[in-house]
Amino acid sequence: MGWFSKDIETMDDLFVHGLQDIYYAEHQILKALPEMIGKATNPMLRQAFETHRQETEQQVQRLRQVFRQHGVEPESVRCQAIDGIIAETQEIAGEVDDSSVLDAALLAAAQAVEHYEIARYGTLVAWAKQLGREDCASLLQQNLDEEGATDKKLTQLAETVVNAQTV
Amino acid sequence: MGWFSKDIETMDDLFVHGLQDIYYAEHQILKALPEMIGKATNPMLRQAFETHRQETEQQVQRLRQVFRQHGVEPESVRCQAIDGIIAETQEIAGEVDDSSVLDAALLAAAQAVEHYEIARYGTLVAWAKQLGREDCASLLQQNLDEEGATDKKLTQLAETVVNAQTV
Repeated sequence: MGWFSKDIETMDDLFVHGLQDIYYAEHQILKALPEMIGKATNPMLRQAFETHRQETEQQVQRLRQVFRQHGVEPESVRCQAIDGIIAETQEIAGEVDDSSVLDAALLAAAQAVEHYEIARYGTLVAWAKQLGREDCASLLQQNLDEEGATDKKLTQLAETVVNAQTV
Repeated sequence: MGWFSKDIETMDDLFVHGLQDIYYAEHQILKALPEMIGKATNPMLRQAFETHRQETEQQVQRLRQVFRQHGVEPESVRCQAIDGIIAETQEIAGEVDDSSVLDAALLAAAQAVEHYEIARYGTLVAWAKQLGREDCASLLQQNLDEEGATDKKLTQLAETVVNAQTV
């Protein structure tokens, strides 16, 4: 999660650092999505990315609310995992020529991003509940549910439109 | 996925590079797990990591079989995503003192790894099917199913044993 781990002594510290990790990740995803939207050629894929961009903005707002409810300022810590996932995406986006192969690669990259977020939000919901922060857990659960729904949509796209056109 | 993307012209190229990406990732996970097993204090968590290590060895063997069935030599390409996820794990493993907080952090890291693998194997199964490689899809599906089962086991641990002891 990219934090200075020596500062983590309690579950509360771990929870706050987890929030800072996903807050950073969501911002990096917001920066990366316009390029993915611009590179995608399949209109349904482009629309899915655009919808996800709008959802991500709402998710950042929910995260800010979780920080506030927990009595801390919203802050980011660098998350090497999301940096790695996005670096791979950009490498592909700039290098594959065939548009339908590129769509398939972009879709795969987006699903890796979704699963990273699903893992992190799942963990944060569990930690919030253990800390007795049902109010935070509820907001984080909303983000988790949206990520899960987006992943399902991308899976449907992968199984039907995008891959079918490329073989 | 860390490949030289300019070499990717067809869906078949993309599939092979996806295999090389997860082949690299599984090897990195095999290298990282002994440290995670050594750091974990909860016996159930340690056992879950040990079981996953054994499963990962089998998964590498299945991947080698997929490469062979597809007529290519097993090879790795560097995957920045898994490198990032593991770097975060190691950062925590070396820095948190409190053993129960460390267990919770290790468990979260393991779930991020699982979800990365779930995303990649899900993509590879879809691509194998689109390429008419049901034989490869079937082996990759076995790995996907194991990763899904491991993630469920870790979620149960997160919700019961590990987090409950830390609050």
